[in-house]
Amino acid sequence: MAALQRLQPVSHVAVSGGTHGNEMSGIYLVKHWLREPSALQRDSFSATPFLANPLAIERCVRYVGRDLNRTFTKQFLNSKAAWDEPYEVQRAREINQLYGPKGSAQAFDFLFELHNTTANVGACLIASVQDNLLPMHLCHFIQTHCTLGHYPILLYNLPDQEAYSISSVAKHGLAFELGPQPQGVLRADLLTQMGALVACALDFIDLFNKGTTFPAFETEAYRFIGSVDYPRHPDGELCASVHSKLQDKDFLPLRPGDPIFQTFSGEEILYQGHATIYPVFINEAAYYEKKIAFNKTEKCSLSIPALQRE
Amino acid sequence: MAALQRLQPVSHVAVSGGTHGNEMSGIYLVKHWLREPSALQRDSFSATPFLANPLAIERCVRYVGRDLNRTFTKQFLNSKAAWDEPYEVQRAREINQLYGPKGSAQAFDFLFELHNTTANVGACLIASVQDNLLPMHLCHFIQTHCTLGHYPILLYNLPDQEAYSISSVAKHGLAFELGPQPQGVLRADLLTQMGALVACALDFIDLFNKGTTFPAFETEAYRFIGSVDYPRHPDGELCASVHSKLQDKDFLPLRPGDPIFQTFSGEEILYQGHATIYPVFINEAAYYEKKIAFNKTEKCSLSIPALQRE
Repeated sequence: MAALQRLQPVSHVAVSGGTHGNEMSGIYLVKHWLREPSALQRDSFSATPFLANPLAIERCVRYVGRDLNRTFTKQFLNSKAAWDEPYEVQRAREINQLYGPKGSAQAFDFLFELHNTTANVGACLIASVQDNLLPMHLCHFIQTHCTLGHYPILLYNLPDQEAYSISSVAKHGLAFELGPQPQGVLRADLLTQMGALVACALDFIDLFNKGTTFPAFETEAYRFIGSVDYPRHPDGELCASVHSKLQDKDFLPLRPGDPIFQTFSGEEILYQGHATIYPVFINEAAYYEKKIAFNKTEKCSLSIPALQRE
Repeated sequence: MAALQRLQPVSHVAVSGGTHGNEMSGIYLVKHWLREPSALQRDSFSATPFLANPLAIERCVRYVGRDLNRTFTKQFLNSKAAWDEPYEVQRAREINQLYGPKGSAQAFDFLFELHNTTANVGACLIASVQDNLLPMHLCHFIQTHCTLGHYPILLYNLPDQEAYSISSVAKHGLAFELGPQPQGVLRADLLTQMGALVACALDFIDLFNKGTTFPAFETEAYRFIGSVDYPRHPDGELCASVHSKLQDKDFLPLRPGDPIFQTFSGEEILYQGHATIYPVFINEAAYYEKKIAFNKTEKCSLSIPALQRE
């Protein structure tokens, strides 16, 4: 068993809503906290709420020029301003100045990103594979203290891929991805659940700052391994929908030979892989343009050492 | 009991998808039928499928310049082309030329419009109050022959309001409104159900054309009587969501004193009306900008005389 790990206390915490401008739970939570910030205050710190993509929020679209949450790579963050660059490239640089700079000692200690999906993921906790000690303890704390749902952990970046999401500008990050919720719709149940998740996460950080020892644990997570596009006609148009037997079955096992699509002419298309996978983000609205009908994950076991502040 | 009514046979029938460019069931059904039109053929006629708002479909948005399905009034249809008019005004004129002109003898006999909503309306049949003999028999036929669901009838126009929807350019019209489905998402279950509804409707028209007598019947419908906006801060921002006890309860009775909203600070807002109503389109994504949290309907009984072709 690995020895107790020690990390610096967490004093600068931010919570971002509206990284995608039509994911309403985080947008309205942040707007509420900007009016009434007391819910984000703890003994040892106060979290800073902010709206990540104000122009997209105003228009109630995912993004204006390009997906902001794919724009926090060094390539974009270190680029020079250009008159014809997408709005989100400029906004990513601003966010990096405010809550980063990415990879620097001045960067915020923790950044939470609040998301919704049209897929039936429940309340999913998304961490980067590059950074998992503090976020994993946080996930485990949520799983054992938050009673409103089941909280699968999704490890998202490919090992050789630079983290590109908004939380990557801070030292540690975690995304809360709640669904199903249509784009542009605010459901009271998901709003309540997301608020409870953030409250639980801030409680964890406060306990951590106060010196609580969090014991080692084993946990299970889902690791992103790739994606599957919709079947298409030669001209690129969809010729099938996600199969009704796969729809809404996020995080459940998909075995070789299981149906995954049904064509508009009525044929079934079966999964041709060689091993059981766990699909997530099945039929997410924003992923049609990314040519993703669902993401593939595999289950993995993680052994996380005990944690205490320095 | 009113005597048997006679109407002219129905030979020109059109089915429109994508009047709103992010309502995917109708869009993909029509795209499929444009490739494989046999499903729309009957002994006595063949229905013509068309995409109503191609530019909005391409961008996967409800509309580009203004809501096409509020643009089929004489004011817009008879307006002169202007360089700065919204795309949908020009497109409404085109559709009126192709399937109307509205109110004329040359107009198509029947136009079906296919819609989706993020609200939990199931499979709702929407007719105009101005035109209900043939559509009401069609609704009754669906209710008694189509077994995939329950089919509430919604009568939509206020009595003194000119019909503004796409089907109003034809002599008779009916909208199929299926939900819940997020904008930009195609669910196999709703696609199947919408295809079955259209097939059943075309079967009815074929039987009508062949001289079948459809007996008189009594039915219940929901009549639109107004709408309720979200509670807002003085600056116009939402300060509440639809209450979790009202969410997804379309077509169920809402009584005075029942909760309708919950504020972001946690208070409940109760329905202040004096009579039981039946809310529909509860928390529809496209209606936030129209300042509609839900529409109010009242139940009404209709007595529809027997019908046969001339």
